[in-house]
Order: sequence, then structure tokens, then C-alpha cells
Amino acid sequence: LLGTHVAGLSPPRVADVVAALGGELLGDGDLELRRIGALEAADEHTVAHLSQARYRNAMLASAAGCVIAAPAEREALQARRSAILTADPYLYYARLTQWWAARQRPARRPGIHASAVVEPGAQVHPSATIGPLSYVASHAVVGESAWVGAQCHLAEGAQVGPGTRLHARVTMAESCQIGARGIVHSGSVIGADGFGFAPTQGRWEKIEQLGVVRIGDDVEIGANTCIDRGALEDTVLGDGVKLDNLVQVGHNVQVGAHCAMAGCVGIAGSARIGVGCTFGGGAIVLGHLQLVDGVHVSAMTIVTRSILKPGLYSGVFPFDENAAWEKNAATLRQLHALRERLRALEKLGATGA
Amino acid sequence: LLGTHVAGLSPPRVADVVAALGGELLGDGDLELRRIGALEAADEHTVAHLSQARYRNAMLASAAGCVIAAPAEREALQARRSAILTADPYLYYARLTQWWAARQRPARRPGIHASAVVEPGAQVHPSATIGPLSYVASHAVVGESAWVGAQCHLAEGAQVGPGTRLHARVTMAESCQIGARGIVHSGSVIGADGFGFAPTQGRWEKIEQLGVVRIGDDVEIGANTCIDRGALEDTVLGDGVKLDNLVQVGHNVQVGAHCAMAGCVGIAGSARIGVGCTFGGGAIVLGHLQLVDGVHVSAMTIVTRSILKPGLYSGVFPFDENAAWEKNAATLRQLHALRERLRALEKLGATGA
Amino acid sequence: LLGTHVAGLSPPRVADVVAALGGELLGDGDLELRRIGALEAADEHTVAHLSQARYRNAMLASAAGCVIAAPAEREALQARRSAILTADPYLYYARLTQWWAARQRPARRPGIHASAVVEPGAQVHPSATIGPLSYVASHAVVGESAWVGAQCHLAEGAQVGPGTRLHARVTMAESCQIGARGIVHSGSVIGADGFGFAPTQGRWEKIEQLGVVRIGDDVEIGANTCIDRGALEDTVLGDGVKLDNLVQVGHNVQVGAHCAMAGCVGIAGSARIGVGCTFGGGAIVLGHLQLVDGVHVSAMTIVTRSILKPGLYSGVFPFDENAAWEKNAATLRQLHALRERLRALEKLGATGA
Repeated sequence: LLGTHVAGLSPPRVADVVAALGGELLGDGDLELRRIGALEAADEHTVAHLSQARYRNAMLASAAGCVIAAPAEREALQARRSAILTADPYLYYARLTQWWAARQRPARRPGIHASAVVEPGAQVHPSATIGPLSYVASHAVVGESAWVGAQCHLAEGAQVGPGTRLHARVTMAESCQIGARGIVHSGSVIGADGFGFAPTQGRWEKIEQLGVVRIGDDVEIGANTCIDRGALEDTVLGDGVKLDNLVQVGHNVQVGAHCAMAGCVGIAGSARIGVGCTFGGGAIVLGHLQLVDGVHVSAMTIVTRSILKPGLYSGVFPFDENAAWEKNAATLRQLHALRERLRALEKLGATGA
Repeated sequence: LLGTHVAGLSPPRVADVVAALGGELLGDGDLELRRIGALEAADEHTVAHLSQARYRNAMLASAAGCVIAAPAEREALQARRSAILTADPYLYYARLTQWWAARQRPARRPGIHASAVVEPGAQVHPSATIGPLSYVASHAVVGESAWVGAQCHLAEGAQVGPGTRLHARVTMAESCQIGARGIVHSGSVIGADGFGFAPTQGRWEKIEQLGVVRIGDDVEIGANTCIDRGALEDTVLGDGVKLDNLVQVGHNVQVGAHCAMAGCVGIAGSARIGVGCTFGGGAIVLGHLQLVDGVHVSAMTIVTRSILKPGLYSGVFPFDENAAWEKNAATLRQLHALRERLRALEKLGATGA
Repeated sequence: LLGTHVAGLSPPRVADVVAALGGELLGDGDLELRRIGALEAADEHTVAHLSQARYRNAMLASAAGCVIAAPAEREALQARRSAILTADPYLYYARLTQWWAARQRPARRPGIHASAVVEPGAQVHPSATIGPLSYVASHAVVGESAWVGAQCHLAEGAQVGPGTRLHARVTMAESCQIGARGIVHSGSVIGADGFGFAPTQGRWEKIEQLGVVRIGDDVEIGANTCIDRGALEDTVLGDGVKLDNLVQVGHNVQVGAHCAMAGCVGIAGSARIGVGCTFGGGAIVLGHLQLVDGVHVSAMTIVTRSILKPGLYSGVFPFDENAAWEKNAATLRQLHALRERLRALEKLGATGA
């Protein structure tokens, strides 16, 4: 829907895009753009982009009325109705989607919905929005132009920074904070208790979680993701961090700026993660480990010791047809014995020689 | 509870079941049924079923007043108070649970609860139900006999098909759709943004997610499961798909009809999955891959390349007592070196021969 | 926040702590405590604890005004302003956090918030609290001093035991029960349908889930965790069980008393787990298995057969730099063939000898 031009709004022209986002216009600036699309599924009113060389043939064959591409494609684009040349077409495409969405999204209406419950002592900026059936406890702070969606929960002392948007049904627990321009998707829980217990006589004694969660600026948090409050110190997410859905971040974890975690990642308590690290889906980092800046972890890999050197790390059992896997897995259980047998043979070889 | 007969409702007789669901009645059709149960935990007012040969002894020993079984069991069931013969006892059992639950469930009351917030411009069918404290935005559409539970969220333009039931606290984001006769469990989020960013100078630039989620008919979605909206194209779930709890489906994914995914499965963005595939708990499929019809993936297996042949695929590290695992895992890290040593020995052998 | 002394409340003295929690006071009982902290980040008004010998140097260097430690440290603590000696410092610390949090938390106000919807026939104890925008269906029971947070959902017949606290946005489905003194964190779903379908002609026929969830006393359940209702029998969690966030417990599962499961664990349907078992993050137990008392499963390990002997079990692919992992993983796919080659060499050796 949002990728298609909305009826009633005059469609943008290629020249409008260039005026807003820059780049060099080739060909017809008056072409009306009705959708952003993929090269393969484009028509004359589609704007598409070429960001990887391997899609070049798709570009040449595409019916897209406008293509965003690197200057090196100038020649190939001469015959096309229109094109935009830019050094980083993928980045341009990202900004185009933002510009496009901003044009089409219904305007946000500031104010507190009549069905929301806002306790005395809450500070809601007059330019902020509190959606229907949301709850804002006392001492909660909602900043300038912040947008708290429907059915959200801001507990006592929770803070939402300027321009930050909480989608429907987000929970921010007591005294947890998110900075400016953030996005939190539905169902996320920021500031539930960390998992802390002292074992005693076969039982678990609760350790109250006395810290909070502090989230920087420009952070995006996916749906149903959980970030636990600290035990004594705080759980901290740096600026620009991006978390996908169903991610679990334990108590006291520190996530460096601009890290990205794909869906279903789990970071156990007190892990310290450097700047610009990335984690593939389902990866796990055990507790109390340190990962330096620039560490990249493959999907479904478990990090069991600290990583002090940047680079890509993996630990994944290769999948196979079940019968082949079964044979290999069975042998794997004897791997150490196999090594001993090999060693014995080598000795024999040495003796024999 | 539901499996037990509710006080105040007259218990069904075996003949009532056969009248409703078919099958051949053996013995006493007037036997009153007070519960559906397992063979091992049955009494004379229990109806149980035999669907696998390995439970045959349990059937012979069972005190169940009525047993559902295949016609081959006719002889063995002659002495029992009553029995129902049917070609597929497990299917019969499934339908019996449906019939039983429908008899016992409180009737749904059509209408919009006084505490729900329904915006002007929303289309709610007169036969539909909107539960307490739910929010229905403008241009949302709720079909005939649909049942939106308490505290749900239907964003602008969301569509719920006829007869579909959303349990409490379900989110359907802007313009996302689910077809007829679906079931969505609590906490699920349909249509949060996909995880899309363009890297730029150590930061991430958001790619607005302009597609929607389109879900077919007869789909069931588990609790706290997330299905992301598409980036440009849509995320699509075919008819009859069944997703368990805490499943993550990324943007642009296409899931073929009648696929089933167990808990904690993750499907990364733009994967295309054929018809009738199944995924064990915690399995992961990486992005942009294709899986043809009839692919079955074992639990906790990560699919790292496309699968173009139907069949069962696995990739699981065999678990073991920790000490044994440690030895094998340590050797595994030298596996390539081991292979080289083996090759050297083989050469030596060849030379020696 | 909670770990820091709240303005307006008079700070506790060390003697107050000892009066409440026991232990032997050394030094100045009048020292005011303003925060609970780690040894490394302490000042003269911080109470810290020493629970592991490896932190002993940190204790010796710490500026903490009060240290909780074992009697063996008496000598080392003589010079310190104050100290508390106790046999189990970690347990003491846990109880201190509870005492501290109880002092600082705003008092719970009994009663039903004006914005909550409580149906006729619900039984809410006069000393219980029902938070804003919560829904309590008929025949639901909320016990003495129970605390149902904001935007919770208690379906028909759900039961919340005395002193149990549901944080914001918890769902308890039809007839599900939790005992006394429990804690359930935001977004959890207790009692969604188990994943049960009978396959028929390429489709899935729903098996209605007729059991409930029954949870014992002193149980804590993390954020966005799901516990499915039983198919015929019930899903049961014993007393003192602790589940972290994003855990999935399938239908008919039995979890023994005092088990603990870290984040992202999945327990498939009908598994029976003994008393005092623990599960690392992301571990999976397949369906219908039995684990005896005292089984401990490492993080990200999949349990594929029953475990009848207590102990620690693991099955994790060791992670490595990507290039090294790739080589080993490639060889792993030929592991069975390698074994055959080794066997051939051994035969040759035997023949040669």
C-alpha cells in the first residue's frame, strides 16, 4: 500500500525526488512516479534502483520508467525515459522510501486520546501524541513530537525522547528511557526484570532488579523484543542500535553504538558488545563475555568466549539430507575416538618407517 | 476444563457423536460421554482414540467406555461397551474435539463492546464482535462473524476476514490482511516493519517498509509470533498455514499453502517456501533462499542454501554428556587438520604398498 | 533507580539491615546506605557483597562502606568502616535487594481502576488490585493481595493466586491458573492453544486444545513467554519454577518444581521434566521426552532423546573464525566417509602387520 501512490495525492515527478534528495537527473524530470518497485516488477511509472552489479541485466531488461544507479551506468541509462545518478544508489533508495512514506502517511495529531489514562504528574509535551487506551504513569516523560501509539504502557518514571515513536502495545517499565528519534515496534517489553536468582537449598531466591534500561538516540527495536532492566547497574543500548523482532537482551548488557541484531538473537546477562557489531538470526552470546568493536557473528552461532579481534565468527552445523546428516552426526559422537585411532595409525606409520 | 463435561449441559451420548461426525457405531449408543481422554487415563464415560499401532496394548487395557479406532480393530472392540470405527481415527478425534468445544464454548455475542474504540470509517460487520478495550482504526474492515478479542489493535486499513478469530491482544498493523476462518493467538504482531537498513558511514539508514502482510484463509498463528510487512512487495502466507508461538517471519517472505512451523522458527527476509513444508522448533531459514514444495526441516536446523528437492533435511549437533561433548567438540575444531593427516597416511600407505 | 536511595525517604543504616536480615555486624552500624552496588563501583555509602573468591582482590580494593562477606573474611574486614558476616553472602545480597526494593516501591493501592473492565461474576478479592485498562472476565478469580497490572487480560475462569503479581499486558486464557506469590512479566501469554493438528489430504485439521495451564506457587515467568494449554490433559508448572523471557512451553508439558529456563528456551509438547532441572539460553527439548530430576542442559543444545541420568548435557557446535569454521564444517559433511577411510587404513595396517 504505502509503496503505491495514494489516490487523492498528486503523484510526485522524478524532478521532485531529485529536488528533495539530490542526485543527477537524466532524461524526463516530469515523469510521474506511482510506485517504488523492484527492477523485475516495474512499469513506466515505477522508480527502481540498481545497487549490486549482479542485478545489472535485470536493470537492462526492466520496464522501470526511472532507475536510480551509480554514475558508471550513465551510458546504459541514456535511452531510458529517466534516471537518477548517485554515488550510493542503495542509500538513495533508503532515503527515497523515507521521503515517500512521509508524504503518504496520515499526519500525526498531537494530543492525548480521550480513552488514554494519563496519571497526574506525568509530563507529556504539548506536541506529543498519546494514542487510544494507552497508560502513562506519574513521573513518566514524553518528549517533543514523540508519538506513543495505542495501548502502550509507560510505567512510573519512563521517558520517551523527542520524536520517538512507539507503535501499538509497547511496554516501557519503571524509569526506563529511550532517546530521540527512536522507533519501537509492537509488543516489545523494555525493562522487565532481569533473570537473577540466588540458589538456596534447591530453590531460587529472587534478586530484585534495581537498575533500569537506558537506550540512546536513533535506536529501532523490533516487535516482541525484550530488553531487561539491570540488576544493579543499567542495561545500555548505544546510539543507532537496530534490533529485529523477538530479540532477548539480558540484564546489565551493554550494546555499543550502531550494532544490529537480526531476529531471535539472544544476548545473555552482563555481556559487553562493542561498536558496529552485527548478529545473524538466532545467534546467542553467553553472559559476562566481551566482544570488541567490529565483531560479526553468523546466524545461529553461539559465542561461548570473549572475542577480542574484529572479524566474522561462525559455528553452525551444516545441514544435509537427513540420511547423510544422521551418518555424520553418529560419527561425530565418536570423533575424539577417531582422532585417537588416527594417532595410533600415525605412530604405527612412524614405527613402520 | 473444556475436555470435561460442563455442569448444566446434558452430556452427549455416543450416538450423538456418530450422528454429527459419522463413523460406524459398535455397541451401546446411549453411553453418556463426560470427557475426551487418553487411553491410559480413561473411565467408562471417557471417549479415547487409537491412532497408532504402538498404543494397541494401551487400548486393550483401557477402561474407556468408548474407543475410536480403525475398522481393523472391530474384533478387539466387540466386548467393549461402545466404539466408533472410522478409517482415520486421528482425524476423527480432531473433529470430535471441535464438535465438543463448539458445544461447550459460551456463545459469542455480536457487537462492539462499550469500552472498545472504533474510529469513524471503520467497517465492522453487524454479525462481528469487537472485544473490550480493543482499538479499530478508520478504514479497518472486520468481516461477517469475525471475532476480535479484547485489547486487540487493528490499525488503519487492516482487514479481518469472515469467521476469523483474533484472541486477546493481537496487533494487525496498517493495511495488513487475514482471510476467512483464521485464528490468531494473543500477543502476535502482524505487520511490524521488516528489518531493512542501508549501511552508510558506520550507521544504518532506515528503509521504510512499504509493503503489507497478506494472509490466506484457514491460517492459524500462535502466540507472540511476528510476521513483518514487506519492504516493496508483500509478505504472503498461503491458505491453511499453521504457525506456532514465537515464530518470526521476515519481510517479503512467501510461505506456501499448508506449511506448518513449530515454535521459535525464524524465516529470514525474502525466503520463498513451497507448499506443504514443515519446520521443527527453532529451525532457521536464511534470507533470499528458495525451498520447493514438500521440504521438511528438522528442529534447530539452519537452512543456509536453497533446497530444490523435497525431503527431510537436518543439521543438528548431537547432544551428549558434557564431558564427552567437550572432547568431541574440541576435536571438531581440528577436523580439517585431521583430514589432512588422514590423507597423508593414505599416501604413505599407497607408497608403502 | 531502585538501587539508589530515593530522595525523601530516610536512608537505611547498616544496623537496620542487620536487624531485618540477620548476619553479624562488624564496625559502624550507623553508616547510612545510599545504594547497593558492585565492589568496583562503590563509594562509602555503598553496600556491596563478596560471593566468589575470585573477586577477593576487588573487595580488598573496594571503597564500599559496607561489605557483605563470609565469616572467613573477618580478618580482612576489620579495618573497613562496616561489614556484615553471613554464611551465604549471595543469598544475603538477594534478600537485601528484596528488602531494599520493598522499602522504595510505591505502596500498592487495592481496588479496581476506574478504566478496567470487570465482568459480572468475576471474583476480585477486596485487597487485590486491578490495574488501568485491564479486562477481567466472568468467573475469573483474583486472590488476596494479588496485583493485576495495567492492560492485563484475565479470560473466563482464569485464576490468580494470593500475592501474585502480573505486570502490565499479561494474558491468562480461559481457566488457566497461577498459584501464590508468583510474578508474571509483561507480554506473557498463558494458555494459548497448543499446536495440535491432524494431517488430512495435505491439510491440517485443528485439534481443539481442551486442557488448561496450571502453575504452582512462587513461580516467575519472563516477558513475552508463552505457555500453551494442554490438548486433553493440562500443562503443569511446579512450585518455584523460574522462566526467563521468550520461552516457549508446549502443550501437556510437565515442568518439575524449581526448574529454571533461560531466555529463548523451547520445550516441545508432552515433555516431562523433573525437579530442579536447568536450561541454558536457546536450548530445545523435543516432544514426548522425559528428563529426570537434576538434568542440566547447556545453552543452544537440543535434547533429542530422553535423559534418565542427572548431570550436565551439551551439544553445541564450537564457534571459530569464519574461515576456520568453514573448513571444519566442510569436512564435517564427509565425516562418515573419513571414518570409512580410517577403517580401511587400519585394516591395511593390520594386514601389513
